[in-house]
Amino acid sequence: MTVKGREKGGAVPQGVVGRLPIYFRYLSELEHQGIERISSAQLGKALDFTAAQIRSDLSYFGSFGQQGYGYNVQDLLKQVRLILGLNKNYSMILIGAGNLGKAIACYSGFKMQGFEINAIFDIDPHLVGNFLEGTTIQHVDKLEDYLKENHVDVAILATPKNASQSMADLLGKSDVESIWNFSPAHLTVPDNVIVENIHLTDSLYGLVFRLNENREIRKQG
Amino acid sequence: MTVKGREKGGAVPQGVVGRLPIYFRYLSELEHQGIERISSAQLGKALDFTAAQIRSDLSYFGSFGQQGYGYNVQDLLKQVRLILGLNKNYSMILIGAGNLGKAIACYSGFKMQGFEINAIFDIDPHLVGNFLEGTTIQHVDKLEDYLKENHVDVAILATPKNASQSMADLLGKSDVESIWNFSPAHLTVPDNVIVENIHLTDSLYGLVFRLNENREIRKQG
Repeated sequence: MTVKGREKGGAVPQGVVGRLPIYFRYLSELEHQGIERISSAQLGKALDFTAAQIRSDLSYFGSFGQQGYGYNVQDLLKQVRLILGLNKNYSMILIGAGNLGKAIACYSGFKMQGFEINAIFDIDPHLVGNFLEGTTIQHVDKLEDYLKENHVDVAILATPKNASQSMADLLGKSDVESIWNFSPAHLTVPDNVIVENIHLTDSLYGLVFRLNENREIRKQG
Repeated sequence: MTVKGREKGGAVPQGVVGRLPIYFRYLSELEHQGIERISSAQLGKALDFTAAQIRSDLSYFGSFGQQGYGYNVQDLLKQVRLILGLNKNYSMILIGAGNLGKAIACYSGFKMQGFEINAIFDIDPHLVGNFLEGTTIQHVDKLEDYLKENHVDVAILATPKNASQSMADLLGKSDVESIWNFSPAHLTVPDNVIVENIHLTDSLYGLVFRLNENREIRKQG
């Protein structure tokens, strides 16, 4: 694989990173449907991007597709899978086994792609000892030792807001390289730790902003 | 409130919309801590944005803060709340009462801000008739009639992937103006319907892309 962005030593822009999984998901669907070939214009139309945007995004990683032919779906999917690193396995832990944590643990979407939750932690004595998706919930007191003895690629944080920073501090002192944060807090972590946030309320607030904006525009129109 | 972006009739850029809830969340914390005043530089430092970015974002909506003084936290919070439309109440329905739907229904983060789930639908006969957060789960067959008789601001879609487009079609034929989509599908909806997606796998894939990128950079460094 040619990895232009990385060869240049520069980080790939966040916008591009955000669109890669969308391409991956859609190409997976096309492959599933047995579609062999797609143009950047068709891809763009289906995903509400411009064809130029798609070509520009992919150009960060090399040269794909052929003028006049478009992309071979299977080849491009394979390339995007490699670019995202979905050809590897990732070890995850889950901190917080409440409703949201449980939903994440049960979510089948990423299990197929080499992601595995190897340990689950909670502070609630009613949850500790229970099984969740085949994994015993351990007391969060065991987390520090676990981190010393086990390699963790991604720590999933689904704790209440008031617990999340202290958990992030603990993770920051370990070798954990990334946190997938579902708690509604802005985490402060060492520079080498990547944080990807899923802030449910932020997403909802963005939605109602758009809702109100649309209503205003209609009123004016 | 001066609403420059809307007065101009133009939609506010997605990047700005994405940052407004972050400002709102952080200003709420500051107010909670009793902090009265903050500069754009301090805001920027806390949230990993530049001061210029913050001033530029806010300038879409009017003129806030004073040179040399910064922002009055309470005033700015009030303004951002108005800009986001969080001074109003929103009627929501939830479609899909599985693990993820349940976690959303139980998520307390948005209840305080005027969002209420007024009806819940599922297709599973084992779930229909059960209570979830004080609301009876109805069979999805009742959804069409419900939409005729009730005003819905936001429909939350937490169905499996193969059911989401047919639900979106049904919603698209009703007066529902927005869909908060948790299903891992790209929805096709009429132009007047806003869709805000929370694609869990996309977020995770973006995270591991960054993880691998960091590893590459460290290897090269």
